[in-house]
Formats: sequence, structure tokens, C-alpha cells
Amino acid sequence: MNRKMVLSTIGKILILEAILMLLPVITCIIYSEFGPLVAFLKSIAIAILLGGGLVALNRTKHQVIYAKEGFAIVGLAWIMLSVIGCLPFVLSGEIPSFIDAFFETVSGFTTTGASVVTNVEELSHGILFWRSFTHWVGGMGVLVFIMALIPKLSDRAIHIMRAEMPGPVVDKVLPRIKSTAKTLYLIYVVLTAVLTLFLIAGGMPVFESILHAFGTAGTGGFGVKSNSFAGYSPYLQWVTAIGMLCFGINFNIYFLILIKKIKSVFKSQELFVYLGIVLLSVASIALNILPQYSNFNDALRHAGFQVASVISTTGYVTTDFNLWPTFSKVILLTLMVIGGCAGSTAGGLKVSRVVLLFKNIIKEFKKLLHPHSVNIIKSDGKQLNTSVIHGVSAYFAIYFFCFVGLFILISLDKYSIETNLSAVAACFNNIGPGLADVGPTSSYAGYSVFSKLLLSFAMLLGRLEIFPLLIAVSPSVWFKK
Amino acid sequence: MNRKMVLSTIGKILILEAILMLLPVITCIIYSEFGPLVAFLKSIAIAILLGGGLVALNRTKHQVIYAKEGFAIVGLAWIMLSVIGCLPFVLSGEIPSFIDAFFETVSGFTTTGASVVTNVEELSHGILFWRSFTHWVGGMGVLVFIMALIPKLSDRAIHIMRAEMPGPVVDKVLPRIKSTAKTLYLIYVVLTAVLTLFLIAGGMPVFESILHAFGTAGTGGFGVKSNSFAGYSPYLQWVTAIGMLCFGINFNIYFLILIKKIKSVFKSQELFVYLGIVLLSVASIALNILPQYSNFNDALRHAGFQVASVISTTGYVTTDFNLWPTFSKVILLTLMVIGGCAGSTAGGLKVSRVVLLFKNIIKEFKKLLHPHSVNIIKSDGKQLNTSVIHGVSAYFAIYFFCFVGLFILISLDKYSIETNLSAVAACFNNIGPGLADVGPTSSYAGYSVFSKLLLSFAMLLGRLEIFPLLIAVSPSVWFKK
Repeated sequence: MNRKMVLSTIGKILILEAILMLLPVITCIIYSEFGPLVAFLKSIAIAILLGGGLVALNRTKHQVIYAKEGFAIVGLAWIMLSVIGCLPFVLSGEIPSFIDAFFETVSGFTTTGASVVTNVEELSHGILFWRSFTHWVGGMGVLVFIMALIPKLSDRAIHIMRAEMPGPVVDKVLPRIKSTAKTLYLIYVVLTAVLTLFLIAGGMPVFESILHAFGTAGTGGFGVKSNSFAGYSPYLQWVTAIGMLCFGINFNIYFLILIKKIKSVFKSQELFVYLGIVLLSVASIALNILPQYSNFNDALRHAGFQVASVISTTGYVTTDFNLWPTFSKVILLTLMVIGGCAGSTAGGLKVSRVVLLFKNIIKEFKKLLHPHSVNIIKSDGKQLNTSVIHGVSAYFAIYFFCFVGLFILISLDKYSIETNLSAVAACFNNIGPGLADVGPTSSYAGYSVFSKLLLSFAMLLGRLEIFPLLIAVSPSVWFKK
Repeated sequence: MNRKMVLSTIGKILILEAILMLLPVITCIIYSEFGPLVAFLKSIAIAILLGGGLVALNRTKHQVIYAKEGFAIVGLAWIMLSVIGCLPFVLSGEIPSFIDAFFETVSGFTTTGASVVTNVEELSHGILFWRSFTHWVGGMGVLVFIMALIPKLSDRAIHIMRAEMPGPVVDKVLPRIKSTAKTLYLIYVVLTAVLTLFLIAGGMPVFESILHAFGTAGTGGFGVKSNSFAGYSPYLQWVTAIGMLCFGINFNIYFLILIKKIKSVFKSQELFVYLGIVLLSVASIALNILPQYSNFNDALRHAGFQVASVISTTGYVTTDFNLWPTFSKVILLTLMVIGGCAGSTAGGLKVSRVVLLFKNIIKEFKKLLHPHSVNIIKSDGKQLNTSVIHGVSAYFAIYFFCFVGLFILISLDKYSIETNLSAVAACFNNIGPGLADVGPTSSYAGYSVFSKLLLSFAMLLGRLEIFPLLIAVSPSVWFKK
């Protein structure tokens, strides 16, 4: 392990975080919020001191990044970003407990949106901005952002991209990694801006529109109201629902549209399965909840919004789905686990993995019936490398082992099985609200310190797709020659 | 598909079932129970007529069994055994509803032990005997039993054995398949007899001892009391706990002991992982439930009994574990999914599969860190065929897809998430009692007809490890040339 190189990269990332904090600083100035302003300035100073120190102390000429270094950088970077990123909450006194602030920040960067804040209306504009901005930064990835910026970049940096980008296969949409990162961010910025305009057009105040666009684009879920989207007009709810769905789609699709390869878009199996799952879920839930609402339109809107919110792993809500019948709640739980498409800002297992696992089952089924037949698995018309299938199978296994481990440990806390199961599902898959005591009208504030740290770990595990974080925290990787 | 051969084999199996019903007939005579006696005689007549008819109408010279026929025979046989096996319950009027009786019989043969009977003390001796005897027959497998009997048997019958015996790999412990089946049944009979004697020695009435030995050997869970084992002495509870654990062990281990290959026993990784999981779970639960019991001995006994009962997928209980803290309940839920060892009478995923999945994760982890390294997976000292690993990975995926599908569909019923989740876990893994409304003190009687059929399907899916049943019920397999 090239420790010096890893640590100096972490240092650079912290300096970038300090720069990113200038945006909430501007917000504080606009809204004349002196307390939060000082908190941000102090946090910026700490970030620059620590980051600069790491860079200065770890100068090295060996800049080659192997897979191991890629994973370690990404894993450690996300932990450190959250440790420093939570300082404004603590220093401003708006979330005085460090553990709570850390939970909130991890929840922000991992685009989970699970909150310990019980009355979000009391937070200052600067803090609200930073809270939602972490979603936007975390959505597409901090390292990918850096890659888009760094002038000279070895193609070995693909290891970093692989570690940070969700999904079983990370394609470079363009031959050079830097161009790929830049293109992805460009699409991201444009889509966020478009969404903001649509929200403003619907009468939402500008500040709220920007923050909700951040939360939607990152598929995060932090907002500015305790009741999330319940108070907004049906137009704003529909716009946001469609927005959430769009950010749960693989960004390669937008790239293909951009370069006018519309035919290739229609070949994407993942996209159609994703949309199929959405339609089926919306229809099932709408019919199931119909008796609870005055008319079919309302039932459809609430079903559509919640399905879009949960499968894209955003977590905004328009209604307390905790009061829905068990059938609807179980569908939502299932969608939490499935998640969005690979290469999007969404969490969860990813639709492409589910599709691959399904194809692999069919293959095994055929092999059982005809032991000597040769079966290959195709994806979007191309034969898939078997190593991808094995990777996905192993990922599915470790995903469930982690899920079960987290579920057992969180159950040491005082809550019910339903609360704990949904808390793990909602944090591990980066959704946010769960069911029962962590449902849409509640918060995670009631959990113990141990549980909050465990759920923070779960959020990071889910966002980084397990392996990078495990590598970053395993001492053997750091200290073995 | 050789339909004639499949159907005539089913016919023979139904005739065997008629013969097996002679045992409850004798029981009825001993206890002078006239009503049930008539019910059994009628059922025997129906079984012989139907079975004989199937044999007579499907005479064929082509007796070769391929994988497809093996799966179809096993899948269909288990459905038909349950359809005919439930007749005594219906005809005697002791479980008047056909759906209820079918559920109870599937639960018996699949060694689940989930019951719709609310007051088991009111059942007659003949019916009680048949109910528990289905556990014993289903435990080791009906087809394996036939293989032990049939004088001339092609080694192609391994396809049947593979379909009926649980676990990722089915070894012939002896070179000939018939000898293997005979040896397995011999061990089974001897262990059941030994357990019966231990129970009688503890003061349990002979009839109850035999029935509980059936229920324990098959890892079933049907008993003779509404409160299961709660009323028996600590000695009887400990004996049964150890018995359940023993029947959750791969029978190859007993064969190795029989032929004095003790060294090989110590090489069995699955055995030690199984015992390790048991010890860890007992210790965790005993400490967790300590405040609810008067002393550590009681807590240890209840923890030990329930852990043995759940991991072996038996389902006997000494205490209402539904009242335990969430942590203990979640451990039990996890043990339900893990299940016993391959090649035992237990259900669940099987410890060997969990071990293999874990090794595959480690391998994938190493491959991520060192993309060009070659990693092989060993099991008990031997290198594992990659096709076994792929098979296990695919099984794990289909297992969870089925689990989630069942969970969603059962949630159309009126119960809570906890009830439904545990009902699926308890039926699909062949345990019996779940949590909340299907907990140890409740029954499955409250579920709708649709849910009962669904759970019956879940029990069969779990017992036959999914593929055989899916093949048996898929029309394309039956009607394709």
C-alpha cells in the first residue's frame, strides 16, 4: 500500500471540501446569519489545516494507483469528508452532539437523507444549504468530481472511479477517464438546473427549489420541512417524482441521448426493467391504498411519488406511508433493496444486478435440466464476461451478509423488528425514512450512540458498495508490505 | 419428458403411501378409535385406486431417468403425497376443511410443523400418529425410501436422490445408490429408536415418546400438546434439544463414524461452523433473555432448546420466544434462514451453502485487490469444482427472490410485517412457529385460503430446494417434445 500517496490525496480532498464550504458561507452572508457563518469559517480553517498538513507530510513521487489504493482512497475519503463536514453543525450549535452531526453528515454525503433533526424548520439557511449540498456532492461522487478537475490524470484513476461509482460494471463513456468524469458532471449540473427551474415555475421559493433540486439530483432526501413534500402542490409533487425517477437512471443513457444514439437507449434492458418495476409497483400500491384516499388521482399521486422516491432511494414523502396496508409497505421495502440503476446517483442493489442474478438463475435452471448444454448470459445484446456474473453473485452474498449482520446488531437497541429491519434497509440502501418508529413522521434521534454509528457505517457501506469501505478500515491492507 | 414413466412412478408412490397408512390403522385399533379407523381405510382405498390406476394407465418400457424426469417425479410426488395424505384428516372430521388439512399435511411431509390446529389435545391417537409420522417419512425423503427398497435400481436414480436430498452436493457414501439409500435409512431408524428410548427413560409416555421422536428425527415439530415442550421436565427438554441438533447434522458424519473414519469427521468444516453458530447463538440469547428468567440455568436451557429447535428447523418450543427482546428474535430469524447441515433432515439455506458463499466473497475480495491473482476455493481440504460454487450462488439468488415474492404476496393478508416475514421464514425454511400472530402460542389458522395455499407452496419449495417443484409445476417441461 502506497500510504503516503493515499494520505496526501485525502489531504487534497479535505482542501476541496473547504472550498465547497464557501457556498454555505455565501448563503450565510445573504441571509445575515452570523452564528453559522463563524461555524463555517472555523470548519474551513480546520479542513485546510488538516488537509494541508496531510499533503505536506506525505509528499511522494510514487503516484501510481493500483486497485488497493483506489479502494482505500475512496473509503477513507468518505469517512474524513463526513468527520470534517459535520463540524459546521456542531460548531453552530444547531446539531450540538458530534455523533448526531456525524450521522446527519454521513446521511448527507451518502445521499441517504435519514435525519436526527426533529424540527428542520428551526435550522438556519446556511446549515440547510450545506445539509442539502452534501447530497449533491455525494450523489455523483467526490472523487469523480476531482477527476473532472485535475488537469493531468492517468487512466489508472479508473480504479478510483470504479470504487466510487455504483453498479457492477463501470464503463468509460469516453475513451479518456477525465472526459468521462467531466461529461458525467456536465449532465448532472444541467439536469439539476432544469429541475430547479421546473420547481421555481411551480411557485416554490428559489432557495427551497435549489435545495430540493440538490436533494433530488443526489437522490438524497433532505428538505426544508418536517413533513417533506406533503405541503407542496400536486404539480410540484409530480415534478419531483419524475425528477427522482430520472436521477435513478444510468447516466450513460443521457450521454447516449446527448450524442443522439437513441437506438442504443432502447437496447438498455436495465432501463426497461426499472420502468417496468416502477409501473407495476405504482399500480399495485395505488389499488391497495385507494380506500384510504378520497379519489383515485390522490392515491395514484401518492403511490407514484413514494415509489419514485423509494426506488430512486431519495426518501422524500408526500404522505405517511407507515399508515398504508402491509402489502404496500412490503413493496416499498422490496424497492428499497432493489434500488435504482447502476451508474446513477441511486443506492440499493441496483436493477442491473437484479437482472443479472435473474439471468444467472435461468442459466442454472437450464443447466440442471440439460447438464451438458452450454449456456451464455447476454446483456444488452453482448455476451457477458463470466467474471462480471461471479462478481455480482459474490456482491449479492456479501450484501445480504452485511444486511443480516447490521440487522442483528441494531436489534440490541430498544425498537421492534419492523423498525430495525426498515432502519437497516433505509440506511444501507441510502433511502432515509423507514417504517414504524423511523417512519416518515419520525426521526432517527431515538437510537443509541452505538446504533447511530452502526447506521452511519451502514450508509457508507451501501453508498460505496461495501468493498471500498471494508478495505479502507481493514488494518491488514494498511500495514502489510 | 417421459410422462408415462413419471406418472407410473407417482402411482407407485401413492400405493406406498397407502401401505404407510397401515401404521395409523394399527394405532386406531389399539386405541379403539372407530371414526378415524374408517377415515384411514377410506383413504387407503382412494390411494390404491388412484395409484393403481396411474400405474395401469402408464405402462412403458422406457425407464431411463434423466435429470428432468428426476425433478418432475420428486416435485409431483410430494404434491400428490400431500393431497392424498390429508384425506384422513378431512374424512375423520378432525380437520374438516380440505385446505386446512392440505396445509397441515404439507407441513407434516416437509417437516415444517406449522399447524392450523388450535387444540391439538382434542385429536385422536390415530390422527396424531399419522400427523407426526409424515414428519418422519418426509425427513429423509420418500423417494430415498423407495430407492432403499427397490431391488433393481439403475444408478441414474441419483437424479432422484439429488432432487430430494437437501444441500449443494449429494455424495453417494457408498458406490451403489441403493446401498447409499439403505445405509442412510438404517442410520435414521437407529437414531430415532435411540431417541425414543431416551425419552421413555425420562418418564415420557411411550406413545408421546414415539411421536416426539418422529417429530425430532424429521426435524418437524408436530407434537401432542398445545404448549409443545413447555410442560416437560428439563431432562426431556435437554434430550430433545440435543436430539434436534443431531438430526441437523449431515448424515455422512454418522456414516463416517460407523465405518470408524473419525479423522474425516474432524475435517468437516460444515459441522464445526454449525456447532460454532449454535454456541454463539445460545450464549448471546441466554445473556439477552437472562432478566426474563429466574436464574441462568433456565435462561440457558430455554436459549439452548430454542436455538437447537430453530437451526435444525424443527420448531418445538419450551417458552414463548415471541416475548423475548428483539435481539434474540432477530437471531432466531437469522437461524431460520441458515438452517441445518446439508444431507440432514433439516431445512433452510444449509450451513454448507453459507460457508461456500462466504469463501466465494473472500475470493472475490482478493480478486479485487489483486486482479491478476488466481484464487481457488477449497472445501474440507479438497479443491471445489467451480460449477458447485456457481450453483450455490444461483441458489442463493433464487432463494431470496422466492422469499421476497412470497413475502409480498402473503402481505395481501391482514397481518403485520413481523407476522408475515416470520411466517414466510418459518414456512419456507420448514421451521413451523414464527413470531407475533404466528408465534409459538398461536397457529396459522387465521390466514386466508390464498395465504394457506401460498405457505403450503413455500413449504414444498423450501423442502425440495426450489428447482424440483418449479420444474414439476411448469407446463413447458411437461408438454414440450
